[in-house]
Amino acid sequence: MSESTLSLESEVSRSLELDPGKSVVLLSGGLDSTTLLYFLKKGEGRDVIALGVDYGQRHSKELRAAIEIAAQLDIEYRIADLRGVNFCLMGGSQTDLSIPVPKGHYADPSMQQTVVPNRNMILLSLAIGLAISIGRKEVAYAAHAGDHPIYPDCRPEFINHMGAAAGLSWYEPIRLRAPFQGMTKADIVRLGHTLDVPWELTYSCYAGGEIHCGACGTDVERREAFQLAGVPDPTKYAE
Amino acid sequence: MSESTLSLESEVSRSLELDPGKSVVLLSGGLDSTTLLYFLKKGEGRDVIALGVDYGQRHSKELRAAIEIAAQLDIEYRIADLRGVNFCLMGGSQTDLSIPVPKGHYADPSMQQTVVPNRNMILLSLAIGLAISIGRKEVAYAAHAGDHPIYPDCRPEFINHMGAAAGLSWYEPIRLRAPFQGMTKADIVRLGHTLDVPWELTYSCYAGGEIHCGACGTDVERREAFQLAGVPDPTKYAE
Repeated sequence: MSESTLSLESEVSRSLELDPGKSVVLLSGGLDSTTLLYFLKKGEGRDVIALGVDYGQRHSKELRAAIEIAAQLDIEYRIADLRGVNFCLMGGSQTDLSIPVPKGHYADPSMQQTVVPNRNMILLSLAIGLAISIGRKEVAYAAHAGDHPIYPDCRPEFINHMGAAAGLSWYEPIRLRAPFQGMTKADIVRLGHTLDVPWELTYSCYAGGEIHCGACGTDVERREAFQLAGVPDPTKYAE
Repeated sequence: MSESTLSLESEVSRSLELDPGKSVVLLSGGLDSTTLLYFLKKGEGRDVIALGVDYGQRHSKELRAAIEIAAQLDIEYRIADLRGVNFCLMGGSQTDLSIPVPKGHYADPSMQQTVVPNRNMILLSLAIGLAISIGRKEVAYAAHAGDHPIYPDCRPEFINHMGAAAGLSWYEPIRLRAPFQGMTKADIVRLGHTLDVPWELTYSCYAGGEIHCGACGTDVERREAFQLAGVPDPTKYAE
């Protein structure tokens, strides 16, 4: 760490004035990341920029949802176009359209078919790059406890190491936050309810149709979360 | 870790047969990553795919060098087009053409101006995604000890945490290797010399001209490395 300190002391160092009150949040347009955006903006009063990623996902309708959500909060939303690197993200139902989207419960092992290789590390690395580029000190994403059984890149150990790497990625530490990592999706719905999250604008469905299919893992999880939270679910489901 | 084990035991898990003898290596076309490619391919006999990244860098000539180097070894070289996300990589002389490339020694604090925000995390995350996508178990990059004073994302602590995150990024651990992290650039030149690395094909210059400028930090370091190693330097320098 002494080398790092040495660099910081230099007159010509690139010690940006990173602003701790300003965040970059990964916004997919789903229920979790939308609630996180509301939590940071309305709950904590932060200045937030949202980042979404177009990687040719089957469910790209989520990006349109995210645009509306950001507009509603008067938040800047940037979309990183990763279609030129989608060969790094192949192999599951969300990027390979020849693989069907599995139906069933979100925590079912069949849902591994929906996992995009290393997606969260790629998204976080871009969000951290953006934070440094525009002088922000904090990156947040909405990994939650319901993700843990299936998604390796939402688990606490993964988040811890990515957080440590983020803290070492620049001359000043960048802070990685995953405030929902100990919460269930029902907890998130309860929190979002207190923040007046516009659920009807959010989009979760992995099948990617005009309305939620109601049968894919993310839709089953969404329905269940509203039921468990005791919050009315305004979503139209096909099934 | 029990959840991870649980997933692996599942009949329908996405436990790819990742091949430990096959690697993905980050190849910029410079001296270090080219030597690493030769080390993995000729020294260790691995099956290697090389990944380069086009992020609109000033020194994009390195990509042409990498193409030739990969062809020489009959290695597949893929270029990830990140120009659609270059707003996540802004602020230094290599992506902002209005900022001049500093001259001087590579370890001089002025060289911080050449650092691209979070570049290595972004590149590694893509390389890990590619490894998973094509069933490889190992990712390698050529961070070395000479990088440590200036480049936060080449330091051992950073590499350690990224390695741990890589190990947790999928259902099976992906191995991150940075075998040069304890070596100087002169050590790398000595190693490359034993492997018959075609130095004349490699390109290091941050100024990005047709021939090496000889005055930017990377060129000064390159020259010095050949001198210290006692290996003839075939490079044509403008200055």
